[in-house]
Amino acid sequence: MKNLFSSDFKLGILGGGQLGKMMLYDTRKFDIQTYVLDPSDVAPSRIACDHFEQGSLMDFDTVYNFGKQVDVLTFEIETVNIEALEKLEQEGVQVFPQPSVLRNIQDKGVQKEFYKDNEIPTATFEKYAFAKAIPASSRSYPYIWKSCQGGYDGKGVAVIRKAEDLETLPEVPCIAEDMIPFKNELAVIVVRNVSGDVKTYPVVEMEFHPEANQVEYVICPARIDEKVAQKARAIAEKVSKAFSHVGLLAVEMFQTEDDEVLVNEVAPRPHNSGHYSIEGAFTNQFEQHLRAILDLPLGKTDSKVASVMVNLVGAEGHTGNVVYENIAEIMAMDGVTPHIYGKKETRPFRKMGHVTIVDEDLTKARAVAQEVKKKIRVIAQ
Amino acid sequence: MKNLFSSDFKLGILGGGQLGKMMLYDTRKFDIQTYVLDPSDVAPSRIACDHFEQGSLMDFDTVYNFGKQVDVLTFEIETVNIEALEKLEQEGVQVFPQPSVLRNIQDKGVQKEFYKDNEIPTATFEKYAFAKAIPASSRSYPYIWKSCQGGYDGKGVAVIRKAEDLETLPEVPCIAEDMIPFKNELAVIVVRNVSGDVKTYPVVEMEFHPEANQVEYVICPARIDEKVAQKARAIAEKVSKAFSHVGLLAVEMFQTEDDEVLVNEVAPRPHNSGHYSIEGAFTNQFEQHLRAILDLPLGKTDSKVASVMVNLVGAEGHTGNVVYENIAEIMAMDGVTPHIYGKKETRPFRKMGHVTIVDEDLTKARAVAQEVKKKIRVIAQ
Repeated sequence: MKNLFSSDFKLGILGGGQLGKMMLYDTRKFDIQTYVLDPSDVAPSRIACDHFEQGSLMDFDTVYNFGKQVDVLTFEIETVNIEALEKLEQEGVQVFPQPSVLRNIQDKGVQKEFYKDNEIPTATFEKYAFAKAIPASSRSYPYIWKSCQGGYDGKGVAVIRKAEDLETLPEVPCIAEDMIPFKNELAVIVVRNVSGDVKTYPVVEMEFHPEANQVEYVICPARIDEKVAQKARAIAEKVSKAFSHVGLLAVEMFQTEDDEVLVNEVAPRPHNSGHYSIEGAFTNQFEQHLRAILDLPLGKTDSKVASVMVNLVGAEGHTGNVVYENIAEIMAMDGVTPHIYGKKETRPFRKMGHVTIVDEDLTKARAVAQEVKKKIRVIAQ
Repeated sequence: MKNLFSSDFKLGILGGGQLGKMMLYDTRKFDIQTYVLDPSDVAPSRIACDHFEQGSLMDFDTVYNFGKQVDVLTFEIETVNIEALEKLEQEGVQVFPQPSVLRNIQDKGVQKEFYKDNEIPTATFEKYAFAKAIPASSRSYPYIWKSCQGGYDGKGVAVIRKAEDLETLPEVPCIAEDMIPFKNELAVIVVRNVSGDVKTYPVVEMEFHPEANQVEYVICPARIDEKVAQKARAIAEKVSKAFSHVGLLAVEMFQTEDDEVLVNEVAPRPHNSGHYSIEGAFTNQFEQHLRAILDLPLGKTDSKVASVMVNLVGAEGHTGNVVYENIAEIMAMDGVTPHIYGKKETRPFRKMGHVTIVDEDLTKARAVAQEVKKKIRVIAQ
């Protein structure tokens, strides 16, 4: 077996945002040599990698030349040049998750057809060349419009309540999808290593703000019936098997009013819904991703304690040098750990960090999370 | 309150070994700007700090000039130039733990007298200008000889079984100390922040190899009577109060045959006996040290799960580029996390890393630790 630890082995990571930064804690823990490529010269990952390069993730030559230097190449964001990854793979660089997986995920139309072809339960949909091509008769309002390309963090998604809503949408290939009245939004992270070993993490639940329709808390374990949890894990494993990915696959799902579980979308990388695992799980998602792509044995996915995760996003009306108001106050609460991503400038709704709250008792962790959410504000100086 | 996170605030760390490296994971998590000074240009901390300087920790000017750049200065090793720290403190740099604490610790003779003056239980001792000055009549064999300066990792300590054993010892100030027949060697980490809040971690136990008289496992919680555990924590708190340190203080103790608890020695920094806390505790010792010296609220010191820690030291007869033999095999075991310090070259007994084993059930963790210890070997290529 190849010697990965304190050796000449080189791991490349496309993207230097917070996911890459958190992954680097674990490459450091294992003393694995890392190369990072990111378009920004102030990327959060800049510190803690061995070699940093500034450049476009969508440019063929940049990605190809970067990838040629390393033994294994991975990514922390899906919007990367797939052609370059395919060429690198052909030339012997190990690219995980594989470019073929990314091909089935990057385009949301292709991703939805992949579910249909593999008999994976998902909301009914149709593909269109552009939004105005969606006939008024096609489905009842409200329904969901999604851009096939480039959707991320809620961008490229819209709720269509009447025909006129289509008019302001960009002229890009898209899908129209039934809007699912759901009880819960759930997620399961599946990990698969090069040898084909597979493990699933416990089901997490996104708790929404009652009015704002925005995820407020990511809760592990989900407060759902054990049968539904088993079903969600089984479906996530089925999705994982269909993709045959190497690395993490975060599977986002809806639990419908009648306890069906439908796949919404997947991300082939560490995921916001898995951040709790740093404090909560026996093996955090970032270490697990490394174990998988380096073909090491997978770690235990169980939780040590219950967890609630709260995202820290920039407050509305604040742009400029960031201040985390009341951060000391939340650190005084039991089991609270803030994670600051290292972006110097805040903007409204920008993801600036997250806070994990852990406790043996989930109800207590949830109560503390509410206090955290009330206290801390991400504002500009 | 000063803004520490993603700000211009600067933390300096003297020493760039594994303790500093692990502390940097947490400065990165909080996005605190760091300056590191170490004599070696391949120090494990070199990656992940914002600014690295190569230079002697014992040289007044080097330490003084380094310290002038930062707002708060700490250290991960005690052998640093105290005069420079004192001058920096006088000039307004916050130095934690305080130079006055280091004055009472760096010299083992002074440290022992400090215990006597503060009525802290410790083994009976006498100070001498050099080993040969110890009269044969002073105490019964065997007893312990310790060099006042520079002892570290078992260096500067000897068991004296007969008068002739003194002859080969270096001609330096020293102490002679009664050898305590102990049941257990225990340690308690105490943390105190600038505001004076104090917390203690659970008692850990060093389990020795039955023949080699070498620590094999650090076990948390210690498998001792609850009354003894309470006594150990109370004594550690008394020691902490006497020193009035800011930051971590690791208090090493003996549990005697008749369940007395005697203080052996202390370290004012993150400590090997606290490495388990990364996976085992609600707040790991490195984050806790940062909270203390930055005057943030202290985190919860309880354990999430039981832990056993095994040091990875270089195998005898092996010098050269390191290989961690069977590391994949130990990673296949439940709850096992290796930490590789990032030293490229192994030498006999060099501390190269450690492995933490966690489980809800301590007996199970201890059994897995034994398998880990049997499997892994730190050898040269």
